[in-house]
Formats: sequence, structure tokens, C-alpha cells
Amino acid sequence: MNDRGIVRIAVDAMGGDGAPDVVVEAVDQVLLEQAQVDLILVGPETRLKALRRSSWGDRVSILHADRALSADTSVAAAIRRGQDSSLWGAIGEVEADRADAIVSGGNTGALMALARQKLGMLAGVERPALLAALPTTDRAVWMLDLGANINVDAPRLFEFAQLGSVAFQVLESRQPRIGLLNIGSEPGKGPDVLRQAADMIASDQSLNYTGFVEADQVFSGHVDLVVCDGFAGNVLLKSAEGAVRLLFSTLKAGFSGSLSGLVAKKKLRRLHDSLDPARHNGAPMLGVRGTVIKSHGSACARGMARAIRLAEVEVRQDLITRLDQQLWTSN
Amino acid sequence: MNDRGIVRIAVDAMGGDGAPDVVVEAVDQVLLEQAQVDLILVGPETRLKALRRSSWGDRVSILHADRALSADTSVAAAIRRGQDSSLWGAIGEVEADRADAIVSGGNTGALMALARQKLGMLAGVERPALLAALPTTDRAVWMLDLGANINVDAPRLFEFAQLGSVAFQVLESRQPRIGLLNIGSEPGKGPDVLRQAADMIASDQSLNYTGFVEADQVFSGHVDLVVCDGFAGNVLLKSAEGAVRLLFSTLKAGFSGSLSGLVAKKKLRRLHDSLDPARHNGAPMLGVRGTVIKSHGSACARGMARAIRLAEVEVRQDLITRLDQQLWTSN
Repeated sequence: MNDRGIVRIAVDAMGGDGAPDVVVEAVDQVLLEQAQVDLILVGPETRLKALRRSSWGDRVSILHADRALSADTSVAAAIRRGQDSSLWGAIGEVEADRADAIVSGGNTGALMALARQKLGMLAGVERPALLAALPTTDRAVWMLDLGANINVDAPRLFEFAQLGSVAFQVLESRQPRIGLLNIGSEPGKGPDVLRQAADMIASDQSLNYTGFVEADQVFSGHVDLVVCDGFAGNVLLKSAEGAVRLLFSTLKAGFSGSLSGLVAKKKLRRLHDSLDPARHNGAPMLGVRGTVIKSHGSACARGMARAIRLAEVEVRQDLITRLDQQLWTSN
Repeated sequence: MNDRGIVRIAVDAMGGDGAPDVVVEAVDQVLLEQAQVDLILVGPETRLKALRRSSWGDRVSILHADRALSADTSVAAAIRRGQDSSLWGAIGEVEADRADAIVSGGNTGALMALARQKLGMLAGVERPALLAALPTTDRAVWMLDLGANINVDAPRLFEFAQLGSVAFQVLESRQPRIGLLNIGSEPGKGPDVLRQAADMIASDQSLNYTGFVEADQVFSGHVDLVVCDGFAGNVLLKSAEGAVRLLFSTLKAGFSGSLSGLVAKKKLRRLHDSLDPARHNGAPMLGVRGTVIKSHGSACARGMARAIRLAEVEVRQDLITRLDQQLWTSN
């Protein structure tokens, strides 16, 4: 945040399926809705200048970067040969303190690796973890890790609980009830690593741990924050998305061709909107010494704008300092 | 199957939340719908005799067992001290060849352990795996393992693909497209064990392998058979169930209080019925040298009847012999 209270956010203009057009559209929304935010768009200068709107004035600057990292660029290649990429450039702005946060819809692995390398990690944290909101209709439920941490040990899961708990308090202004994802809620269930992690989380007085939670209970309001490894988290999130999508398409087909169907369809659309991934887009990357928000690769402009809003909240609430203190206190 | 073409099925009358009443109700349905099936109910004789209907005639016999295994009985305790349990008695009927199959809604771990110990395993198979149907609206999608195989190596996943493929052909009369559950569909994604398993499955010409499948694609008709470890399978199934349940309850609330809502609700109920877990109840336990069907602990009578029907199909199609041959050919 600069001394006029403006939060400066670097946006990887080439990250994500619809880039850079989706990003440009998101910029329009952000400028309207977030008065105290300035943006730095990172990408090919000529292309971005052609898309630039006069209404943006001096709130948006453009930083040149030759190219986008493709979705299948390996992490190693992104680090070794990614210097001219828009992702590298955007993270560089945070590194040089010309931006307070970075938002990218690009390659998750490269984002994690570059952020870790260029911004450094909070004391004692080994790898970044992604915190994502589940698409529920009612109160927010967050889950971590949704990132690339596939094989995790008990101390890592404990760390997820610590990071997630502080982040949840910052983003949702209340203390989360924490559940550890397992395939049964009885204490003896599941693999050893989960029982060890449960012991660690339960014995930390700063955490509101409620016990093991099964995947279906995640949707019934049992917990606010679900802790799991990145594989299980990915399966949980995508399974719910797939099932809901199937259900909606079946329902829509069933309701077509009648007046009552017309009314039903309207209600259905409203519900569909409330479950819209765009409303839940933006995953804070926790553990990095800097504000990093991962936007979904297929996010629309509204989703991208939501991710940028999340970045502003995280900066204003000083999440990084608070995470640092929490880790300091408990380690 | 006896020489009159009758399939004899032993039912653990005390397994599951609603036992024995749910089981008794299911018996009524089975006797009406499955003319060539005889049943052996295993449980406390006095109690079962009091519930016996005169319409059952000699198609249902009762075998005494003192007690039910509770859901939290440890596997070790079930094996050491379970001789007087209804589960033990029911498996014993198959062991002694007085029944062709067993159906139980009881403790999964105990069922797997007892079935393995008393019936033995097919050549080369180490532990049983559970094959379960996902609640989809359209064509059946099956998944294994849904059981207690939490940490599995690549050869085990390959074995799941073999067992599942044969079972699917028997139960659905077509060759399944097989997908291996992962967190990305690109070949390089996910943990090493999945890449190794993919190589093994892909190189078996008898299997129709389509590659990695993500959890959301499971619901969009990409594959017929999903191979995964028991942890991921459990998370996938329960996440979908939880999300769908949340959606239905929100929809119902949204549709109340209007005429169009009334019509919509009817359609909703029809869809709900098609997704009803009872329609998909019954998980064949594969790898055991005998026909074993696990019914969901909370299954209703219709679900239990469906599990018993599945047992009949499996016996008539001679699934065990066909699995044995398949394993023999490929090992």
C-alpha cells in the first residue's frame, strides 16, 4: 500500500484461458468498484496498449513482458527460462515493492515455484499452499490445500491448519471451525498421517479443531475450513463441481417447454448464479512472503475481478504480517 | 446355484442401520421380484422368527446367530471373537457351499477381513476391493476401490482395473472405458504411483484404457469405470453426494409456496429418485473367491433388495470364474 492508501496490484495479463481480453474486462470492473486500487498489467506492451481504454487514466500502468507461460510449461523451465514471461514480470513487481500483490490465472506450478523463489517463504514454511473457497450457497467454506502438495506429512497438515485459520479470520472476520478431511469421522479412521495431524491440530489452543470431517459433511455446514492434501482437495472440489453441473443440465432439460418450467428455470438460474465459480474465484497462496492470488485458469472477467478484490482485502488486512506472527508464536 | 437353477443368498440380517426390519422388508420385495432366489437370513432366531411372514413359505430359512457386529467393532476383534456374529454365520454359509452369495450391510472392514479369511482370494489378489456405482442420472459409472485400501501401489491399481473391467462386462454387458483418477488429465500429472499404474493399465490389451480422468469428468460421461485408491474414491463419492444433497434442499426451499413451484417440485422429486442411492446400492467385493455384496449401512429396503438382485446377477453370470480366468491369462 502506498502512502495515499492505494493498494497496487500486479496482474499477469497473459495468465488464463481468456487472457488478455478477460483481464482487460476485469480491469474495467475493478476500476469502477475498487476506488483505492491501482493496477499494473504485465504482458506484451503493443498488444496491451491496443486494448487499453482511455477511461483507465493513470490508475493502470502497463509493464512489458514478451510472452505468456503456457499451461504445460514445466516448473523447471518456467524458473530457468521464464525471465521474459508475464508471470515472472508480475512477481518481480512485488519483489521490487512496486506492487503489493500479484494476481495470476496462469500455470499454478510455475506461480508457486516463482513466488517461492522470488518472494521467499514465511519462517518455517516449506512450500506454498492454496486456500480455495468451495462453491456453497450459504456461508463460506474454505479448503486447503488445493495446490500441488500431493504427498504431505502430519506437520505440513498442521501448518495448513495454522495458515488457513489465520487467513480465514482475516478474510471472513470470524474464527473458523476446522475439520481434517478423512474417510470416516471416528478417531481411529483413515491413514496414520491423519491421526498424527489430528493430534497436532487438536493440541494447538489457538485452533478451533472439530475433528475428522467426511467429504459429504463439508457441504452440510459442519466446518468452515477443511484441511487436506492437494490431491484429496482437488478430488473433493472437482467431484462436487461435476455432480452439480450434471444435475443442473438434467434439471434444465426437465423444465423446458412449459410455463411452470419457465418460472422454475428462473429460480434455477438464480441458484446457479449463487453457485457460480466466478463468485468464489481467487485462491490465496499461503506461506509465501507476499500476497499472491491464484485465479482459476477458466475464470471469466467477473471471477478475475473477484480475485483482484481478494488481493486488496488481503493487503489491507495485512495478512502476511499476521501469518508471520502466528507462525512465530506457535513454533 | 443349486440344480433347480435357484440362487441361494445368505443375508446378514443384523447388518446395517435399519436391521433387521429393513432386511425383512427387502425380503418381501426380493421374493416378489426374483422368482429364482432363495434366502437364508442369519441373525437371532427368536427375533427373526417373530418377524417372519407366512408368505415367505420355504423360500426363506433362518439361521441362528447370537448377535450383530457393531459398526465400530475392530477388524481384529471381528476375526478373533466374531464367531457368534450374524456376519460370520452368513459368510460361513457360502464357505460351506450352502449359499452362493452373501449380502451384508454391516461393518465393511470386518466383512472384507472375514470374507478374505474364510473364502480365500483369487490367485494373485492380495486384498479385496469394493466396486460401487456412482449416482448418475444416465449410464452407469462404476468406481473402485471404495473400500479400505487406502495406500495402494501401482500393481494394485492395475489389479483394480482388471477386476473392475471383467465385473463391469458381467454386470453391464459392455466393455468399460477405464479412467485412472488423477488431479490433471495430462500424462505428466499427479503422483508417481499413478503414472506407473497408467503404464501398466495402458499396456494390457484386454483393457480399454482412456487415460487419466479428473473428478469432474467422472460425471460427464468420459468413462465407465474409474480406478482409484479407497481414500480418493470415498472422497469423490461423498463429495458428490453432499453437493447434490445441498442443492436439492436449496432448490426445494426455493420452489415452495407457488403453483409453478408445485410442478417443479414434482419434477425435482423424479430427478431425486433417479439419483436415489437405493437405486445404486450394492457394491461387489472383488478379489474374494466367492460372491460378496456390501450394502450401504444406511440403505433402505429397496436398496437392500437391489444389493440382493446384484448378488443374483453376479452368481448367474459366474463372475468369480471369469475373474479367475482373466487373472490367470494376464499374470
